[in-house]
Order: sequence, then structure tokens, then C-alpha cells
Amino acid sequence: MTRVAVVGATGRTGGEVVDAGVERDDVEVAVGVASEAGERSGVPVRPVSEIADVLADRDVDVAVDFSTPEATLSVADACAEAGVALVVGTTGFDEDAEASLRAVSEDVPVLKATNFSRGINVLQRVVGDAVAALDDYDLELMESHHNGKVDAPSGTANSILETVQEERDVEPVYGREGHAPRDEDEIGVFARRAGDIRGEHELILAGNDEVLSLSHRAEDRGVFAAGALDAAVWLAGRNPDWYNFGAVIDDS
Amino acid sequence: MTRVAVVGATGRTGGEVVDAGVERDDVEVAVGVASEAGERSGVPVRPVSEIADVLADRDVDVAVDFSTPEATLSVADACAEAGVALVVGTTGFDEDAEASLRAVSEDVPVLKATNFSRGINVLQRVVGDAVAALDDYDLELMESHHNGKVDAPSGTANSILETVQEERDVEPVYGREGHAPRDEDEIGVFARRAGDIRGEHELILAGNDEVLSLSHRAEDRGVFAAGALDAAVWLAGRNPDWYNFGAVIDDS
Amino acid sequence: MTRVAVVGATGRTGGEVVDAGVERDDVEVAVGVASEAGERSGVPVRPVSEIADVLADRDVDVAVDFSTPEATLSVADACAEAGVALVVGTTGFDEDAEASLRAVSEDVPVLKATNFSRGINVLQRVVGDAVAALDDYDLELMESHHNGKVDAPSGTANSILETVQEERDVEPVYGREGHAPRDEDEIGVFARRAGDIRGEHELILAGNDEVLSLSHRAEDRGVFAAGALDAAVWLAGRNPDWYNFGAVIDDS
Amino acid sequence: MTRVAVVGATGRTGGEVVDAGVERDDVEVAVGVASEAGERSGVPVRPVSEIADVLADRDVDVAVDFSTPEATLSVADACAEAGVALVVGTTGFDEDAEASLRAVSEDVPVLKATNFSRGINVLQRVVGDAVAALDDYDLELMESHHNGKVDAPSGTANSILETVQEERDVEPVYGREGHAPRDEDEIGVFARRAGDIRGEHELILAGNDEVLSLSHRAEDRGVFAAGALDAAVWLAGRNPDWYNFGAVIDDS
Repeated sequence: MTRVAVVGATGRTGGEVVDAGVERDDVEVAVGVASEAGERSGVPVRPVSEIADVLADRDVDVAVDFSTPEATLSVADACAEAGVALVVGTTGFDEDAEASLRAVSEDVPVLKATNFSRGINVLQRVVGDAVAALDDYDLELMESHHNGKVDAPSGTANSILETVQEERDVEPVYGREGHAPRDEDEIGVFARRAGDIRGEHELILAGNDEVLSLSHRAEDRGVFAAGALDAAVWLAGRNPDWYNFGAVIDDS
Repeated sequence: MTRVAVVGATGRTGGEVVDAGVERDDVEVAVGVASEAGERSGVPVRPVSEIADVLADRDVDVAVDFSTPEATLSVADACAEAGVALVVGTTGFDEDAEASLRAVSEDVPVLKATNFSRGINVLQRVVGDAVAALDDYDLELMESHHNGKVDAPSGTANSILETVQEERDVEPVYGREGHAPRDEDEIGVFARRAGDIRGEHELILAGNDEVLSLSHRAEDRGVFAAGALDAAVWLAGRNPDWYNFGAVIDDS
Repeated sequence: MTRVAVVGATGRTGGEVVDAGVERDDVEVAVGVASEAGERSGVPVRPVSEIADVLADRDVDVAVDFSTPEATLSVADACAEAGVALVVGTTGFDEDAEASLRAVSEDVPVLKATNFSRGINVLQRVVGDAVAALDDYDLELMESHHNGKVDAPSGTANSILETVQEERDVEPVYGREGHAPRDEDEIGVFARRAGDIRGEHELILAGNDEVLSLSHRAEDRGVFAAGALDAAVWLAGRNPDWYNFGAVIDDS
Repeated sequence: MTRVAVVGATGRTGGEVVDAGVERDDVEVAVGVASEAGERSGVPVRPVSEIADVLADRDVDVAVDFSTPEATLSVADACAEAGVALVVGTTGFDEDAEASLRAVSEDVPVLKATNFSRGINVLQRVVGDAVAALDDYDLELMESHHNGKVDAPSGTANSILETVQEERDVEPVYGREGHAPRDEDEIGVFARRAGDIRGEHELILAGNDEVLSLSHRAEDRGVFAAGALDAAVWLAGRNPDWYNFGAVIDDS
């Protein structure tokens, strides 16, 4: 049984991690952490200012963090101090913050991912392979989410774009209207927002009278919480190092 | 056997109309018309400046026009004079030009369409019905075409948007990037450009935890030339009036 | 506030109706009914053998029934007696049972539907229109559901097939393997079963170098429970008659 | 300039290879071969019974074969004798015939493929990777082709199935009707036949509340002829060995 602290326990994803954790047999949600004290699904939530005490008091094996870059860094320091493993799902780190996180991984195991879905991780792999193999095909990326999502494109779409750009030097174009001849080195990146769509991502590669389509659809947001907890169980007890979610998949 | 003159016979769509026409049993391509004299698929092409003589000399029943608004108007006048029916596939008329065309339909039958595909026409109908019935669902429109298409969105996408707007007051948004909260009254309109895609259009309607998708795909550009010739055969011998392609479909 | 009795309250869909009902402001789930007494989401469940007393005791306006044909008929009789409206989501009635239900609609309002999703109902309409308009195109129907669904095709797919058959005399073919030339009057009907797919249905119409696709996807099973309760609210207080879900949509 | 003999020059795919070859700058279609003498696109076609003379007379570098297993074997022997490279697109070899072909590759370079589309070949790779990584997800395979295709599933679908089976022990099921509970180790394989569809293949992997879809669509049958000629150009002058189409892609 892995004892987990969920940081960002009152946020959307963090809250789902708590909810999913209390239902699982291989995980004990020992405590939640947030900006203020409270409660979630029967789990006590304590303020992040007390993180050092919390990790010690609750005998935590792994902290699972979906908060903000600032909060993550203070939690990371406390983890390094207390010998607690760290799963980071928070996004938006700048280079300095990323470097600080990596330094922590010399003391404790750290696993950072922008997406804890096994399907999305496999999508990323096959996208890289296909873009490399069909190196003269046109690429277009589309994602679709519910109408309440205010940022575009999604973080996952940006990650897929990075994967593409590791193989080919393409510039994103976020819309086309009027006279808009396509440049050979551009990639259209489009964001649909409608209804309650859970999350879809599609890359097409087209040329030579054929179209290859690689796509992923989430049926439920719970897929991400489940993956973060899988990562926590996998990470507990490992050697200090910098890990990614692909390793969890390959072992499953 | 309907005797047809193809105006714009050396252009892309007009040329395909000639090619398709010479293969058909119910049509005789009597002559082509273009800015300059020439030949296409064994059919003589004569200059548009001689249109009046051409219609008389070649005993034409119907002119099928895929040219430019200016050329279309001069052809329309010649048709009115000679009692020749007119199928117009040319786009981009302003209000005055449209009015002139409509005046011609008092003398001879005129059928104007932006799209001669039966499937697209049915798509338009079901789009209107579905938007009316699901009047609080979010709408998003996407089209995909080959990488050589320089205008966006496609003429067909604009027609679908008009159909939507007859049912609901939505404003098109042609891209989303950064902080982009969705307004209740907006419709995303996206144009993918890649490879050799013949032409796809999709409208989604999403709300209430469900998504309805209405889409059309052309497998070959020949679908449009075939439809224009169907329209010509249907139009020959009718009374002077203003017709649309829907009437051809309902009769087929 | 519409007072509702949910028949089949411990079954899958009936249970979801109870759950959805206790969250709504326009509905009061007065009581559940099932083969045996019990409880669901805080609502008392009473045995169907006591249905007459239950309807009177709990001052029920509408019974919402997701049970079995036999149970539905006994509930229908009790509704007719007590002047309670009836929403029927149960499927599998034979002709005699259907006739008995229709007889009840002379005394109280009865609304029967195989699917309470607004999207599916609109899909049915546009399917009918498109099949009628493209009367020489080939048709193929596909549905996809989670891996635990044991019957194929889905009830909704069968309803779509009926809609198609009202327009055209096509025979379903449920698989193709080996030498399998396509007959002009056949329609392929395929059932995918995989993972947790909530429910998808797609009809394609193909011919003349084009493909029209009409499809629907449920993002959550709750869409059906919500629709059944919408129907209950709409039906309460109406005149005795036989209604269908399309009327609810048109009024919404 | 690679000098090519097209075997099966009056068959469907072979004929397209001739047509495509006469348009290309890097290929000279030196001669066609078929069961009887004739002509195709201006290229003389000679009987396969004279294959040895034909290869010598016409100074052929590579034979591109889309015929029958029996014809292929006689052509292969002639190629070995004459030192001519061989591209084989014919399918349906039994084990003995396959062994004979492989023996020929000790004398001359032989490249055999079931599909000469670059996109399909990349699809095969990513299918193998994804199935291996998501080893507990349900798999379902669907292909769609024009209504004149009499065999099901397509040869390409069978190849994809083989790729899947190299990673996982799944049994194909070609239809589902009535009581049809899904077995963990089955894979649904479905063949849609409608209109003029050029060819589509899709594998879905579903589990854990998500769906990964890997799909390919041909926009034109010419994609296969083009690929076979790419293979011929690539193969000319290589060392005797057994090659596959993946090597051509990796070099392109």
C-alpha cells in the first residue's frame, strides 16, 4: 500500500486524484495539501505552508502534485529533505524552475509528465515515428475540448507539437482565413470547443494521395487521475532519478 | 441528347466538365468557350468574344458556365438573346451582378449553384434541420482540402455557415490561441490544408454530454463536373425561371 | 415540481434516473419501484406488486419505467386506474403488449421511446431525410460500445435500421468474410466492442465519388436518464394520448 | 533511367503501373507482359511464355510483377537467369512458392510487398508499437472499400491483423449479432463496402476510459502504382537479397 499526499487537493485534477485514490486498494491517500486547510472526500487537507510537517506526520511515501510551479518547488524541497518521492503533473515551469526540480531528483525519485494517460503517451511515440518516416507529408493538428476550456491549444496539443518539432522544423499556424497559401513548413493547429467533449487530439499526415491519422480520445477525465496514481505506486521505493511516464507504461 | 457549351473550358472545373461530357451518352459537348480559341479533349474551344455566334452556330441547348463573373454576364446576355438555358457554377458575384443574372432568368431558365454535389446539397439540408432542433448545442465547422488551395474557408464551408446562420445568430471565429474563452454565440470555423485531400466538411453539434457529427467527403473532383452536367440535362427545355440544384436532386 | 415514480429503480438505467432525479430542481423522485423493496440514493424502493398503492400513497404525477415488458404492463394498468402519466423506456414489447400499452394511452398520457437522447432523435430524422434524398447510394451502419455489452447490434442501431428501412428496402448483413460480393439491397451492420466506449452510431451513404456520414456519440450514459426526466416533466398534465420523444425536443 | 518490364500489364494494378510509368522521368516502361500479346498506353505487351526473350531483348533492369503466383514463379526464374531485379506485388503464395521466390533472391535482388503505400507501411509500424505498449486494451479493426470489392477483409487488413498477432494472441471475429459477449482475446474485423471508397483502414485500441485510433485512407488507387515504381528504381543495381518496402521508405 503506497501512502500518498495529494498537493493541490482542492483543485480540479488534484481533487480527482483524491477521489480516485480513496477508491483504490493499492493506494492510501494519507493527506491532501492546498493553499488553505480543508477536506476532500473524507481526507483532511492541510496548508502547503506546513508541508514539511505534513510529510513527516502522515508517513508519506509519494507526493502527487497538481498545483502551481511555485508551490511545487517548495513541496519538492520538502520531499528532498524528507526522502519522499515526487510525481509532478503541474505545468508551466520556466527554465530555472525546471532546473531546480531536476536538482531535487538527485536526492529523491522525481517523475514529471504533462499527461498521465497511457494512450496519450503512446500517441506521442507513434507521432514521432510517423513524422520521421513520412518526412515530406503535410501535418495538421487538431484538438477538441468542452466549451469551458479557456486556453488554446491544450497542453497536450502543445506537447504533441513539441514532439513533431523534434523531428521537423514546422511553424504552427492557429487559423486560416482569406488568402492563406500554405507554406511547406507550417502546421495548422486548431482548437475546437464544444459541449462536454472530454478531450480529443488528432494529427494527420497527408501526401502522395494518402492520409494517415493518429488520434486519441479521452472518455472520462478520470483517466488522468488514474495514471498519476499508477505513477505514484510505480515510483515509490525507486532510486533517486528523473523519470517520465513512458517508463511506467513500459513496465505495466 | 442535350447539346452543351462549356464556358471556361480551359479552366480547372470547366475542363473537367468537358472531359466528363465527352464520356456521357446523354450529353453532346458541342463547343467550348474560353478567353482564347483552342481545344480540349477533342472539343473545339472558341473565344468568349464570339459567344453569340457560337451559341447559334453550334445549336446549343444549355451553356454550362465555370468562368468569371464578368464573362458569365456576357454569356448570360447571349443566352437570353438566343433562348439558351444557363447553368452557372461561377462564384463571386456582387449584388448588381446577381441581379443581372436574375433578370436573365425571366427570358431563359437559369440554374445557379455553388456546389453541384448531391451529397453536399443533402448535407446542407440536414445541417439546417439539426441546428434548428438542437438549438442550444455548440457548433463547430471544419473543412479539409489539398495543400494548393489558397483561400480559406472553402466556398462550400461558407455556404454551410450561411445555412447555419439562417437558423441561429452565430459569429464565426477562424482560430483560437492563448486565452480564448468560448462565447455562446460563436462558431469555430477551421480550414485544414494537407496533401491531396479532395475535400471534406464536418459540422459538429455538441451539448448535453453528446456530439452529433454531420460530414461529407469528396472522393474525386469529378463529382462536381458530373453534377453540373446532370443539371444541364435537367434544365434543357424548362420554362424561364430561377432554379437551384436541390430541384435536380429531388427529381433524380 | 413534477412528482416521479421510477420503475426499475434498482436496474442500470432506472438507477441512473433516480440518481439524476434527486439532483434536479424540477423533479421530485417520490418513490422507486422494483421487484423487491429496497433503497436507492436515499429514495425508498417498493415492490412492483404494490404499484397501485404506491402511486396513490406517494401522490405520483408521472411513472418513468425502465423495467421489463411484463412489469411495464402491470404498471400501465395501475397508471390508467390512478390517472398517472407514463414514460416508457423499456424495450422488447411484442405486438400484443404494444397494443395493450396503446390502449392505456386512451386514459392517460403515454410517451414511449427507445432512446431519450435529443441527439439520437435528431440523428434519426436526418438519417430518414438523407436516405430518401440519396436513394441510390450504398448504406453502411456501424455502432461501437464498451466491451461489456453482450447484445449486438445495439437497440439504437436497430432503431436506426428501422428508420432506414422505412425509406428503402435493404437487408442487413452483420459481417463479411471470404467471397462476399455486395448486393445492391444490402446494408452492412457492424458492432464494435472495446474498452469503455459510451456509445457511438454512424451511418454512411456512399456513391457518385462521395461519402456522407451522419454520426452520434454519447459522452456519458447520463444523457439518457436526463432525457427521460425531461420527458416526464413535459408529459405531466397533458391530455391522454400516445406521444413520442420528438415532441419533447421540438418544444425545448 | 530504370528500364522496367511490367508483368500483369493488362490487369488492374499492373495496368496502372504501366500508366504511371509512362508519365515518369526516372523510369522507362520497356515492355509489358501478360497472358497474351497486346498493348497498354502505347507500350507493347508480350506473352509471359516468352519472358526469357523479352527480358533480354528489351534490356530490362527490373521486372515489376502484379500477376498470379504461378506466373510470378516463371518470371522469377527468368529474372534469376537474366540477372534482372524483381519487385513482387502479387499475393496468394503458398509456403512452397514463397520458398522458391526466396531462393531466387540468392541470385538477384527481390523486393516483395503486399502494399506499396508509404502510409500503409508506416501504419503497420505504429500499429505494432501501440499494440505492444497498450497490451491490455481491446482491439478492433475496420476497413472500408468500394462496393465492387468482392473479397473481405482486404489484403491490407489481413496484413495489419498479422502485425497485431505478432504482438498479441488475438482471434478475429468477423461479425457480431444477437447474444455475442466479447472475449478478451478476440479482435473484431469488419469490412464496409460502399460507393467508390478508395480504401480506408482503422485500428482502435480502447481501455482505461480512452481510445487510440490509428488509421489510413487512400485518396487514389494510383498511390500503389507509384510506390511499386519507387521500389523498382530503388532496387535496380542492388546486391542479390530479400528486401521489403520499409527499406525504400527509410531511404526516401
